[in-house]
Amino acid sequence: MEWKVDRQSNKPLYQQVFDFIEQKISYGEFPLGTLLPSERKLAERLNVNRMTIVHVYDKLHAVGLVERKRGSGTRVSTHKWGVLSKGSTNWRRYVEGSTFLPTYPLIKRIREAAKQLENGFDLASGELSSDLFPSQLLQSSLVDESFPNDLSYEHPQGHLGLRETLSAYVKTNYNIKTTSSSILITSGAQQALYLITQCLLSPGDAVAIESPSYCYSLPLFQSAGLRIFGLPVGPNGINPKDIEDLYHKHQIRMVFLNPTYQNPTGTVLTDTRRKEVIEIAERLGIPIVEDDPFGLLSFKEEKHSPIKSFDYNGNVLYIGSLSKVVASGLRIGWLIGPQSVISRLADARQQMDFGLSIFPQLIANQFLQSADYTTHRKALTQELLDRRNTMISALHEILGEKVSFISPNGGLHIWCKINQKISDEKLVEEGIKNNVLFMPGSVYGFPDGYVRFTYARLEKKHIKDAVLRFSDILSRI
Amino acid sequence: MEWKVDRQSNKPLYQQVFDFIEQKISYGEFPLGTLLPSERKLAERLNVNRMTIVHVYDKLHAVGLVERKRGSGTRVSTHKWGVLSKGSTNWRRYVEGSTFLPTYPLIKRIREAAKQLENGFDLASGELSSDLFPSQLLQSSLVDESFPNDLSYEHPQGHLGLRETLSAYVKTNYNIKTTSSSILITSGAQQALYLITQCLLSPGDAVAIESPSYCYSLPLFQSAGLRIFGLPVGPNGINPKDIEDLYHKHQIRMVFLNPTYQNPTGTVLTDTRRKEVIEIAERLGIPIVEDDPFGLLSFKEEKHSPIKSFDYNGNVLYIGSLSKVVASGLRIGWLIGPQSVISRLADARQQMDFGLSIFPQLIANQFLQSADYTTHRKALTQELLDRRNTMISALHEILGEKVSFISPNGGLHIWCKINQKISDEKLVEEGIKNNVLFMPGSVYGFPDGYVRFTYARLEKKHIKDAVLRFSDILSRI
Repeated sequence: MEWKVDRQSNKPLYQQVFDFIEQKISYGEFPLGTLLPSERKLAERLNVNRMTIVHVYDKLHAVGLVERKRGSGTRVSTHKWGVLSKGSTNWRRYVEGSTFLPTYPLIKRIREAAKQLENGFDLASGELSSDLFPSQLLQSSLVDESFPNDLSYEHPQGHLGLRETLSAYVKTNYNIKTTSSSILITSGAQQALYLITQCLLSPGDAVAIESPSYCYSLPLFQSAGLRIFGLPVGPNGINPKDIEDLYHKHQIRMVFLNPTYQNPTGTVLTDTRRKEVIEIAERLGIPIVEDDPFGLLSFKEEKHSPIKSFDYNGNVLYIGSLSKVVASGLRIGWLIGPQSVISRLADARQQMDFGLSIFPQLIANQFLQSADYTTHRKALTQELLDRRNTMISALHEILGEKVSFISPNGGLHIWCKINQKISDEKLVEEGIKNNVLFMPGSVYGFPDGYVRFTYARLEKKHIKDAVLRFSDILSRI
Repeated sequence: MEWKVDRQSNKPLYQQVFDFIEQKISYGEFPLGTLLPSERKLAERLNVNRMTIVHVYDKLHAVGLVERKRGSGTRVSTHKWGVLSKGSTNWRRYVEGSTFLPTYPLIKRIREAAKQLENGFDLASGELSSDLFPSQLLQSSLVDESFPNDLSYEHPQGHLGLRETLSAYVKTNYNIKTTSSSILITSGAQQALYLITQCLLSPGDAVAIESPSYCYSLPLFQSAGLRIFGLPVGPNGINPKDIEDLYHKHQIRMVFLNPTYQNPTGTVLTDTRRKEVIEIAERLGIPIVEDDPFGLLSFKEEKHSPIKSFDYNGNVLYIGSLSKVVASGLRIGWLIGPQSVISRLADARQQMDFGLSIFPQLIANQFLQSADYTTHRKALTQELLDRRNTMISALHEILGEKVSFISPNGGLHIWCKINQKISDEKLVEEGIKNNVLFMPGSVYGFPDGYVRFTYARLEKKHIKDAVLRFSDILSRI
């Protein structure tokens, strides 16, 4: 609920809340039978005294807008203003009937807390802080001559100009060779993953993902009815042999990997292992989905060539994105793969949303071609390195032996093991209460006692305080 | 295939084509075993002599890049450069295994012809012509102060400012009362429909749609496993009684309507019937999905209040869009409904694409609030009226008794019955051959012998010639 009471208004608070709920009911936004939040919860959400809400609910009841039944809370009345309503859709049946699973409650809880956070520390959201987004540069990239005249529907695979720019971009930056007709522009990496799980796999199919993996945090794998098997991640990434084992044991049909600065562990799959992965995929004929959002955010001179760059036979679907390198709100990602696959997924995407808006595609296209982009990326990587260093010093200094971690050589995250027995849920709740947010290991499919800290979303000057705050709650539990 | 031969180049044509295919193979875009197009087809597509392609395929075969088997065409060789390849994913199994259905071949054929059309007449694409898009006005709406600094992920329901603007916009223009928390910004109407069919319905559910209806042209209903029943559309729209009958016979769980300037018939559901629809929906407790992309494109003074404006109990999910009023490439639509439904669909959408880009949302928000928008809409409606009139005169003058139609009072389309026995597919193929494109009735679930003409996509001066061309092919069949 985004609505807030207006404390400057002459209208009493209870009247404001009453009018708000009455409006929701009369507009059909709270249809007949809708369960209203409990008095305590609504008071908390609107940050008013509970007695105010008690007063509001009493008045709603007196005018006949709500019904109360012991044990089942307050519901919008099926009689409205004294007249028996003809009826209404049982929306709950529709909302709960679908096989499409909702976001995990714990993740939802953290995301909502992040939206409401004021004067707190967000070590949870896996994105850059606002000051790192190149807004000015993006704006100047949308110059007069690039503003489109033809605003018709785009090509199903996305704007041709951007696809051509990207085919040069992945060649220069990743040594991936491809042409524009094998690229699909997507709404970030998320849409690429959604298309793959929905359109290339069927319910009951077995797939392999890293363990831990951000993939566990995406209910879309479960929604698609896939059976998931884990590939344990060590300091050098997964063990390619494990793919072969899973293939023989469970007939896995696809492997999802995030080999460079893996989310959440920050580890890198070695080059030798990358080549082994390709060799196994070719031999067994199972495709690899390589998600590579952090590849360019490297703190070292050496670059890691994506698995895709060793893929001469089209076994790898490669996912790239500008979300972590430019801005998450731009919503530009891409998928590279065999032409028949790309064209099939482009057709499916047309049916889902009829393609991306032309505007972010043009902005991305201009920006990637400008000299500003390189400048931006260098500055960004330097700043992320500074933040990582600050975070690591703070962890050593403040938490010492209480946590263990491997310092990541790139990306946005540090993966910490907490060296004491602890309940993830309790830790998160305590964190929310004390305005310090982080991601518990359980959302990545790991047992309790691990935490992912994002050092990219907090300005450097706040990082030490954030770790202090975390240390506080840890010692209190 | 977007690639073209370069006729200015010194490199012989056959060498260009050879290099192109060799590149595709070596990049893995045509993986091992990929079936290449027949010599005739590829020659047609690249607009070169068939002998050129014969020469190319011979050479590809000679160097061992392709294999030929009598009756099964030319395939990428499993031996590459003489070395037996380790193997490759059988992508066909993945691409064809999914329950997600591809676009209907006839529609795909017409869309592809529309993309390649030069010096022809596009009466098929259901969108405005490029000259009608307010590019200049949109550009000036993206002024300095509106350019965002914070490019983080947006609220799952979309940009709050735009949702607030829309809640005022639908009040003024449609007499729909709602608040920002009951609005979901979508990628056009298409995404709203996709979310509804995927997340509120289950395979096997029965739904009612108009007959004819553009819904038949969307495989997404079939992909979601829905059973579809038709509500016949007369000059005054559907008969509400039919909803009740379908409910009793087939337990329909949802009704999809496009009551104003219906696509494809152009008809309007009368106000009396709209109220009957609401009454029936309330009594039976079945939700109505009201798609309203053309409501504002009215050639008469009178306005048609959406069904949603009579919906006080939250039985209607209302879909709006800027695709037909501003620009299809902007990709801004919205869904209005009970808060619990909107919040559920917003959560599902996060899993599909993590939300829309901030840029089209800001551009739409600025534009809808500017005086330019009203000016644009008035000019647009006047121009569409001119085009409709031109089209109707041409139809009368040139085709006379050969076709029957009702003149639409708004929207983009004229629905014509052809008064002779005819095969839709033949008519379309003859049209493509002669560079005049239109949509046959069969794609809207109707028997052969109907055609939808879009008068909005062609400039006025070309409309008469388009009808002449159509008349030519009609008399030839």
